[in-house]
Amino acid sequence: MPGSHTVGEAGEHAILALIRSHVGPTPPWVVLGIGDDAAVVEPARNHLEVLTSDVQVEGVHFDRHLADSQSIGYKALAVNLSDLAAMGAAPRAALLSLGLPAALEMADLDALLRGFSECARRYAVTLIGGNISRSPGPLFLDVTLTGSVKRRKMLSRHGGRVGDALYVTGSLGAATVGLSWLQTGGRPIESHGPSGSSSASDVMDAATRFLRPEPRLRFGVIVGRTRAASACIDLSDGLADAVRQLAQASGAGASIDATAIPVAAGAVSMLGAEQALQVALRGGEDYELLLAVPRKATRRLAAAAKLGRVTVTRIGVLTSGAALVVRDPSGEHGLPSGFQHFSTAPAALPTPQPIGRSPR
Amino acid sequence: MPGSHTVGEAGEHAILALIRSHVGPTPPWVVLGIGDDAAVVEPARNHLEVLTSDVQVEGVHFDRHLADSQSIGYKALAVNLSDLAAMGAAPRAALLSLGLPAALEMADLDALLRGFSECARRYAVTLIGGNISRSPGPLFLDVTLTGSVKRRKMLSRHGGRVGDALYVTGSLGAATVGLSWLQTGGRPIESHGPSGSSSASDVMDAATRFLRPEPRLRFGVIVGRTRAASACIDLSDGLADAVRQLAQASGAGASIDATAIPVAAGAVSMLGAEQALQVALRGGEDYELLLAVPRKATRRLAAAAKLGRVTVTRIGVLTSGAALVVRDPSGEHGLPSGFQHFSTAPAALPTPQPIGRSPR
Repeated sequence: MPGSHTVGEAGEHAILALIRSHVGPTPPWVVLGIGDDAAVVEPARNHLEVLTSDVQVEGVHFDRHLADSQSIGYKALAVNLSDLAAMGAAPRAALLSLGLPAALEMADLDALLRGFSECARRYAVTLIGGNISRSPGPLFLDVTLTGSVKRRKMLSRHGGRVGDALYVTGSLGAATVGLSWLQTGGRPIESHGPSGSSSASDVMDAATRFLRPEPRLRFGVIVGRTRAASACIDLSDGLADAVRQLAQASGAGASIDATAIPVAAGAVSMLGAEQALQVALRGGEDYELLLAVPRKATRRLAAAAKLGRVTVTRIGVLTSGAALVVRDPSGEHGLPSGFQHFSTAPAALPTPQPIGRSPR
Repeated sequence: MPGSHTVGEAGEHAILALIRSHVGPTPPWVVLGIGDDAAVVEPARNHLEVLTSDVQVEGVHFDRHLADSQSIGYKALAVNLSDLAAMGAAPRAALLSLGLPAALEMADLDALLRGFSECARRYAVTLIGGNISRSPGPLFLDVTLTGSVKRRKMLSRHGGRVGDALYVTGSLGAATVGLSWLQTGGRPIESHGPSGSSSASDVMDAATRFLRPEPRLRFGVIVGRTRAASACIDLSDGLADAVRQLAQASGAGASIDATAIPVAAGAVSMLGAEQALQVALRGGEDYELLLAVPRKATRRLAAAAKLGRVTVTRIGVLTSGAALVVRDPSGEHGLPSGFQHFSTAPAALPTPQPIGRSPR
């Protein structure tokens, strides 16, 4: 199917045939998959259904000069899986809505679908429908993803209580510096970090995390099943934004210990510790999880982290009142504001290049 | 909320607040609506779930110089409801994904959401989630819609049998000439029709049907419940395309009687009978339904039409073999091909203006 011809030359039938060629076997709960006016599925018995949708738009969320098509397809599904992880839900079905510029190469569309399918296979997602349209502007991929969760195992932003500890998975700031590094053409890294020898691989690892985020799905599901957290949210818009959202939804304040925030090694290598901390606090797209954890659930959280193969770090606590603060050795500061989508002035992040933050 | 400022000036929080202001009360099966990482719903007990998504892209599906914002919002949901109608499914929840140019006026966004909500109220759809993104190109609205249907009441394209009669709802060609009329600036109509006096209102009615299609939802659900059809498909891509899809999915051929096709009065007024027939056969976006009806279900179909407040017209029959033909007084012809999305050459429709067909 791939060749030197474009989507516009190939036409609708060839595009649909290409999409179908990437669809794997369908599980028995799919009554009607791709090819009718709508898809039909059997709901998961005794489960609630979780639904989310997130779009990736060329020029906003990705740049085809920086990201390969396969990664773009992979990420379009991965960012949706991160939302399910934050609810403790197991994924089921996806609908893929594609806006295709006529000049897009069929080979690039093929690669994009290959990336999407790779992510779908890895996380047991079945593509059941969607639609294609011509786009007179940017390429866009809008994914709707469904999942299932038992009512009492569901996580949300709302359940946190005053006194619950705040934990974050993995390390933060990687996606922001990874993008920044790609934007500068992947130039040699001038190390600011303690271990100069590993800087290059740290930064390349950060770029990979920007291009192909791995949703914390297994961990999220285990946390929900074992009731290891009282509230959860993903970090698509950065830690500061996530802390604000979770605290406000839970009717609490929050106090964050800046020295405890797990900063990605690549960020430290590229920016030095101080600036890296700011990026870890404010930069988005890390797709880690923030969790509120009651004292009595601490052990269950550790067990979930082990089974889910992620590190978790205690970074603060939910407090009474509404104040949102960050403590560091110099004192207490207000939590910085998160990235404002649609803002005309880009968030002033202390990175070598203006960061084209990628709002969801 | 509406004012002279743009989406880019207003910023994300104001946009989200505007969207929330248009969300009505949520039914008890919505466990978590807008505002968390994902929406959560209780599936309808003993029902299958039906899912569809369709996008409307500026410059492809609509032109903001021809269509008012409220109609654009209305139609974005209506075209998805038509897909549910074709499955016999009752609608439940929608996710709305908006790609917004920074220069879009907040007042236009407000009107767009008002149109979407008007359609949602009329057809009992609950908006439970979605996402917003900046668009560096066209405005786009991608809607994912869920519905429910009992397994034995479900319609699909696949169930038709040789000998089943083919019926179509309403009248055809209105959307195509309505769009054409809007494109020419709504100029005075030079009547080709028999009743010159009603021509103007017929054509304006056609324009309304292009701008605000009414999905045959009530009828579709009743047809499914009473087993009044063996197969069903909507006419989003035109009658010729629908006949081809339904016949092929059912493993049959089809013979259509051209003289029986119910041509919209507005099309006849604007184009004369002969050209209007071609538009009725090939033009898309009428969002009527094509049904295969076994002889023994003829009465049930008539009853469903009465209850669903639509006219139905017998236009042909499913035949053995794979031939797809149209009969008219001059003889038998091959079924014309439907509109080819992504085709660089527009379908040559015999209308006064090149028709900017609006592919789904």
